[in-house]
Amino acid sequence: MKVVILGAGFGGLRLARKLNNKAGVDVVLIDRFNFHQFQPLFYQVATASLDASNISFPLRKLFQGSKNVRVRLANVEKIETAQKKVITDIGDFEYDTLVIAMGGDTNFFGNQQLSDNAFPMKSTVEALQLRHRLMTLFEEAVNAQDEKDNNRFERLMNIVVVGGGPTGVELSGAISEIKRYEVPKDYPELNAAAMNIYLLEGGPKILGAMSEQSSEQSRQYLERLGITVMTNTILKDYDGETATLQNGDTIRTAMVIWAAGIKGNVPEGISKELTVKGNRIKVNRYCAVEGMTDVYAIGDVAYMEEPGWTNGHPQLAGVAIQQGDVLAKNIVSMAKGNTTALKQFTYKDKGTMATIGRNLAVVDIPKPKLHFKGFFAWMIWMGLHLFLLLGVKNRFSVFFNWVYKYFTHDQNLRLIFKPFYRETSRKKGEKIKENRESMVSSVHV
Amino acid sequence: MKVVILGAGFGGLRLARKLNNKAGVDVVLIDRFNFHQFQPLFYQVATASLDASNISFPLRKLFQGSKNVRVRLANVEKIETAQKKVITDIGDFEYDTLVIAMGGDTNFFGNQQLSDNAFPMKSTVEALQLRHRLMTLFEEAVNAQDEKDNNRFERLMNIVVVGGGPTGVELSGAISEIKRYEVPKDYPELNAAAMNIYLLEGGPKILGAMSEQSSEQSRQYLERLGITVMTNTILKDYDGETATLQNGDTIRTAMVIWAAGIKGNVPEGISKELTVKGNRIKVNRYCAVEGMTDVYAIGDVAYMEEPGWTNGHPQLAGVAIQQGDVLAKNIVSMAKGNTTALKQFTYKDKGTMATIGRNLAVVDIPKPKLHFKGFFAWMIWMGLHLFLLLGVKNRFSVFFNWVYKYFTHDQNLRLIFKPFYRETSRKKGEKIKENRESMVSSVHV
Repeated sequence: MKVVILGAGFGGLRLARKLNNKAGVDVVLIDRFNFHQFQPLFYQVATASLDASNISFPLRKLFQGSKNVRVRLANVEKIETAQKKVITDIGDFEYDTLVIAMGGDTNFFGNQQLSDNAFPMKSTVEALQLRHRLMTLFEEAVNAQDEKDNNRFERLMNIVVVGGGPTGVELSGAISEIKRYEVPKDYPELNAAAMNIYLLEGGPKILGAMSEQSSEQSRQYLERLGITVMTNTILKDYDGETATLQNGDTIRTAMVIWAAGIKGNVPEGISKELTVKGNRIKVNRYCAVEGMTDVYAIGDVAYMEEPGWTNGHPQLAGVAIQQGDVLAKNIVSMAKGNTTALKQFTYKDKGTMATIGRNLAVVDIPKPKLHFKGFFAWMIWMGLHLFLLLGVKNRFSVFFNWVYKYFTHDQNLRLIFKPFYRETSRKKGEKIKENRESMVSSVHV
Repeated sequence: MKVVILGAGFGGLRLARKLNNKAGVDVVLIDRFNFHQFQPLFYQVATASLDASNISFPLRKLFQGSKNVRVRLANVEKIETAQKKVITDIGDFEYDTLVIAMGGDTNFFGNQQLSDNAFPMKSTVEALQLRHRLMTLFEEAVNAQDEKDNNRFERLMNIVVVGGGPTGVELSGAISEIKRYEVPKDYPELNAAAMNIYLLEGGPKILGAMSEQSSEQSRQYLERLGITVMTNTILKDYDGETATLQNGDTIRTAMVIWAAGIKGNVPEGISKELTVKGNRIKVNRYCAVEGMTDVYAIGDVAYMEEPGWTNGHPQLAGVAIQQGDVLAKNIVSMAKGNTTALKQFTYKDKGTMATIGRNLAVVDIPKPKLHFKGFFAWMIWMGLHLFLLLGVKNRFSVFFNWVYKYFTHDQNLRLIFKPFYRETSRKKGEKIKENRESMVSSVHV
């Protein structure tokens, strides 16, 4: 049975690994990158605590010696279900069974100006772009101060993070640590206290998917770190210089990070009617796309209802991994011609967590109902992330980087390998858009 | 005394560090990157043995707590000696003493087509581009094989390195190890034996600046590694598909690496008459630019004659560092008004070395005249490079990476964080130029 898997994120990769060297199954794993990205730590790449390579693992290395898994680096252009093939920029791939595991991308909800000017963080490359922008921000602030351009200085010292989910919370916490530990040492010229970090959340509380306790606790942690947390606050627009809120208030800022929306990466060839809100593909309890034959979807791009999750599952690694597991078993059964043994998917919620900063984290575990916070929660968070990372060398590198940072408060990863993203007084405004686009188009696939 | 140093390479950085916290001297250190680059290990970044961050050190971190050294990230646009100031893209900097330490860049000797299509390696970013191209080369070869496009396959499996100096030798040696250890594991579909590596040198021997023994030995090592070494061979042109030699022979290749020429980065405002061949600025024994006042040049961009070095010094880190030392002493003296104590520069040649591959290196030491080769030379080479690297964390990371690689033959840094550099059968030829340019313009400063 020819199985084509689109996407090597948590779901697609798990599936491919479970099908590795299984008899009767030939797998082609297609991704636009040649590595698996460990999304939960993107924010540490963005804030120069980890190297991008520490949380990336080459796909080909994972399948060295595999008898039945082939890896292809390609962009999916279209799915032709009638001919049972996938069209990519490197050629066509025929399938007997197709699995869409393409995850999600940032949703700017159609706001072009926002999309042009705000920074998303849904790939390692975007995390690197974010890091470069953060680092140049301080360089530019030094220049603005040299030039006594107070307006520009103020804009450069305000950072706005939009979205109070785990990504927004972790990112704003990490940026506050840069403000506290790194800026005063690296930029003695700058008054670090002039730096403001805003976290905007549209709903009434941050970490809305977590327990009341965790939500409240994380807000206290963030405020203790000096972050201005604004709930019930919606960003309406951002033109590169001024963030405008729905209530008409404005924040002058040179950097808006957008972590407030995600939409499924649905390939061409899947009709609109098969998707639901958030651009997710509707699947049944077997992960089969409703209304198609031999096409499955798992992970963030899939939408499945089950008792207890009548609005679909949260878009988390855990769901994708568990779906990969069940689908792998079902595919092996089908390859043997045994279609009666197919298993339905049932999500086992093992808990959720978020880290806010050094020694500060929150953990919710549903069964038995437990809640942890502070240093202990932080240790759980670190241990689990080390455990989930792929590769002994990556685990060691991340651990070493964390220990080094914990004791020195001072990483040496504040490197700008990228073009100058410069908002000088000479070329501002539209230039920002242009810069980010050229960075995105050149770096992003 | 206001000292402005242009460039934070080996020379400029050494000078700034020696002037750090010295009374009576205020230093502005200007570089286009925010980090010091350790050039001798670029080739290991290019061949995915080291992370770019391992050999880069943030300048601001080096001068944390400095009372008199300020770091500025800027591109030098012009020197105005009449007003004693440097014009940059972030503003003007006035100086009492100016030091040009801007090093060298790749010299394509005016061949535009070559410059468009060949890969240079004179910065960390260029080393990363090279790595990305190498990695995509193999992906494309897999595709060419899938499509049964033998012409394209052949082209993708030929790699041409031009220049038999240390860079060319080290690079071709490292690529042969990718061929031997990594391609067979990562790309079981590919016949690694079909891969050819050519090293072209215009002169009669490789490592021409080293001893006869080292030159001969390194050639033997390279040939043992399966590299086709071609001396007295000059590359005339490369159009992205075919490398044409001066004798009319051609090599069909999708990748030419150009390590055959260097020219000084002379800023605007230094007139042509002040430079000599290789675009180097002529200086006297005090590193002062002949014909200018209060302007000095050190390192690769400077040209100084002294007894024993009547054709100038080799463009090596050692010369730059020693010039930085002497100039620092002289500047401190001048700042004290003591102009009679100025010291002339005398180069102490401590030896040269090159590594060809695992356990294979050559070392020449002039006094006492010694020559080492093989494993022992390789250990010397590694120890010295670890010693010269900046930062305990970088040293540890490089050491760890080397040990890991030595025992596993298998790094996990084969990551393509860049746009696809794809020479598909659909869009070839001129597309290559366009691709490389967009990469260069977007990544390079």
